Amino acid sequence: MDASVKRQTLRRLAIAEGHLKRVRKMFDEDAYCLDVIHQSQAVQAALKKVDEIILHGHLHSCVLHDIHEPAGEKEKIVKEIVEVFSKSK
Amino acid sequence: MDASVKRQTLRRLAIAEGHLKRVRKMFDEDAYCLDVIHQSQAVQAALKKVDEIILHGHLHSCVLHDIHEPAGEKEKIVKEIVEVFSKSK
Amino acid sequence: MDASVKRQTLRRLAIAEGHLKRVRKMFDEDAYCLDVIHQSQAVQAALKKVDEIILHGHLHSCVLHDIHEPAGEKEKIVKEIVEVFSKSK
Amino acid sequence: MDASVKRQTLRRLAIAEGHLKRVRKMFDEDAYCLDVIHQSQAVQAALKKVDEIILHGHLHSCVLHDIHEPAGEKEKIVKEIVEVFSKSK
Repeated sequence: MDASVKRQTLRRLAIAEGHLKRVRKMFDEDAYCLDVIHQSQAVQAALKKVDEIILHGHLHSCVLHDIHEPAGEKEKIVKEIVEVFSKSK
Repeated sequence: MDASVKRQTLRRLAIAEGHLKRVRKMFDEDAYCLDVIHQSQAVQAALKKVDEIILHGHLHSCVLHDIHEPAGEKEKIVKEIVEVFSKSK
Repeated sequence: MDASVKRQTLRRLAIAEGHLKRVRKMFDEDAYCLDVIHQSQAVQAALKKVDEIILHGHLHSCVLHDIHEPAGEKEKIVKEIVEVFSKSK
Repeated sequence: MDASVKRQTLRRLAIAEGHLKRVRKMFDEDAYCLDVIHQSQAVQAALKKVDEIILHGHLHSCVLHDIHEPAGEKEKIVKEIVEVFSKSK
């Protein structure tokens, strides 16, 4: 990962961590249950953003810099990306 | 939330927290970027499970115990549940 | 389903059907593949909207009108709603 | 798209179309509302599968065959893929 991707990812990751701490706190303080779910969904949204930034950086290095790997290795890279897409929600 | 819902939620929340710590660790150790995304998706899946358990408990108390609230209040409850569904990924 | 829910659902369903016809057409005309995916995602978004309208109507009749069913039946209703949430993307 | 991707996509697209016709039919016949949602979610799952097949084919041609485009054009391709991921549910 290059420095800029890393910086952006770290910032979003810190947001996700902060939201998750708040989920735990709300839970411990018996907050209204739908508010807890909202907070949990905020963590998920922040992590999805993390994924997008990392994926962008990854595609950048794969596509932009033309990967010089044997065909089998390239096919593996393609499959990994589709798998990430497949699991994304 | 009743005691059983709380216990289940806490267990899942601990799993999500563990996964998120691992995301941070992988990131700090410059792990392969798609592995970081997989780990991040594991956090999201664990939190979605948390949401389901909480929602189940909430619907239980709304539907099972028949809520005796004015119609306006009930409509608010319905809207909140749909909103949670709408944001779910 | 009451008449208003039905009308709204039908309108959204027609939108989803229109988008899906367009996916097929784009595909037959060899459109740029990412444009096909965008169109397919538009169908999915329209259907998610259909789901939300139907769910809203369903919760309305469950919660608002207090269902007078045996507890086992009510638990089934709650489980069904959580299952729908669980599969939602 | 190459012939094999096209064939697979067409098969999945036909499944999605079949499911969507069934949504309409269930709706017209006043089926139980949560069953309609399940059917609608089956359309969405089939379309997500369509998206994955198309994306796989696209990445294949981008990554495997090394795209010889100016850097600006490549960056556009990367952004498009991330956008598709971002909208995926």
